[in-house]
Amino acid sequence: MALIEALNWRYATKKMNGQVVPQEKVDYILEAAKLAPSSSGLQPYKIFVVTNQDLKEKIRAVSFDQSQITDASHVLIWAAWDGYSLERISAVFERTTAERGIPASAMDEYKQRLWGMYEPLGQEWHANHAARQAYISLGTAVAAAAEQKVDATPMEGFIPTEVDKLLGLNEQGLKSVLILPLGYRDEAGDWLVNLKKVRTPQEDFITEIK
Amino acid sequence: MALIEALNWRYATKKMNGQVVPQEKVDYILEAAKLAPSSSGLQPYKIFVVTNQDLKEKIRAVSFDQSQITDASHVLIWAAWDGYSLERISAVFERTTAERGIPASAMDEYKQRLWGMYEPLGQEWHANHAARQAYISLGTAVAAAAEQKVDATPMEGFIPTEVDKLLGLNEQGLKSVLILPLGYRDEAGDWLVNLKKVRTPQEDFITEIK
Repeated sequence: MALIEALNWRYATKKMNGQVVPQEKVDYILEAAKLAPSSSGLQPYKIFVVTNQDLKEKIRAVSFDQSQITDASHVLIWAAWDGYSLERISAVFERTTAERGIPASAMDEYKQRLWGMYEPLGQEWHANHAARQAYISLGTAVAAAAEQKVDATPMEGFIPTEVDKLLGLNEQGLKSVLILPLGYRDEAGDWLVNLKKVRTPQEDFITEIK
Repeated sequence: MALIEALNWRYATKKMNGQVVPQEKVDYILEAAKLAPSSSGLQPYKIFVVTNQDLKEKIRAVSFDQSQITDASHVLIWAAWDGYSLERISAVFERTTAERGIPASAMDEYKQRLWGMYEPLGQEWHANHAARQAYISLGTAVAAAAEQKVDATPMEGFIPTEVDKLLGLNEQGLKSVLILPLGYRDEAGDWLVNLKKVRTPQEDFITEIK
């Protein structure tokens, strides 16, 4: 299915039916999320895939009781780095040069310049910047899910500090930023499924400067 | 082309060859960007499409001299709302209810709850939240470009206040957040084109909780 067709098919599913998404489709969506671009290729986030029903219940309880969290078969949670550090950046660049078969020193100058720019910006800026990269990845995952005819509901509506506790994220230097339940729409029970998809009119959305 | 294949094909093109991307492909990519999900469906951003070469030169000058900006045929710039307001939210919801053929009042309660939540968070939080939505749209646009075999280079490396001035964004209540030049790779001149795409290893990127 072409991407535009898939994006028109998808919507923020409000009611899911409990049907399980096959593992190969979940893997495909996660692969797309992993292939998303990120600033300097740092990929400053991880993805937690929750299938445990007890944990889903607990996450739902701190997510304004949104039913998709327990009716989805897989709940994806993007957890972004709580800050940049020279160590974290170095680890990524060392892996990158090793996999490319080039000397580790090849990225030294770039690394120093990047850290020289990031360090003074402080941890709050870092965490926000890392979180933004996760949004790109979510955009890619949503597209992949739609292509696979898997329903998904992007969510910011949860209490991040509570989700952090449930997943033990602080100890890992991470903060939860986005949740994406994966499952299948319950057409009979979903008030949104038959409503028209509305977007900003073209003339208000796009400005061409020729 | 399946999305994963497209995402593996793409990379952050470092050198473009000046070839012009056909208008129908640009339109397709913009349509994907428009179809991206956003918080409460607000789509709190616009996209500027710059083909004017003089303006591209000026943008390049405040974007660390990145050559893709002038070698791309179309430079997409996401400009996010500088803040939420009851007026802005109302305008979107009024359009939504009108297009869906339901009473304008149908979203009143939701609107009041949303604004009740947003208002105390302040304009800096608003602008940041709006910017994050633009990142989802960029992720979708990058996927669409790759599907169309159009090269693209996601960029945060520019001086937003200078780009804001060049596009007159302040007067429109907008702030530039992302740039995406669209064009075609110059294989001979691009140091990155033949280097292996490196991503976080699966075991470090994904945590399953069963």
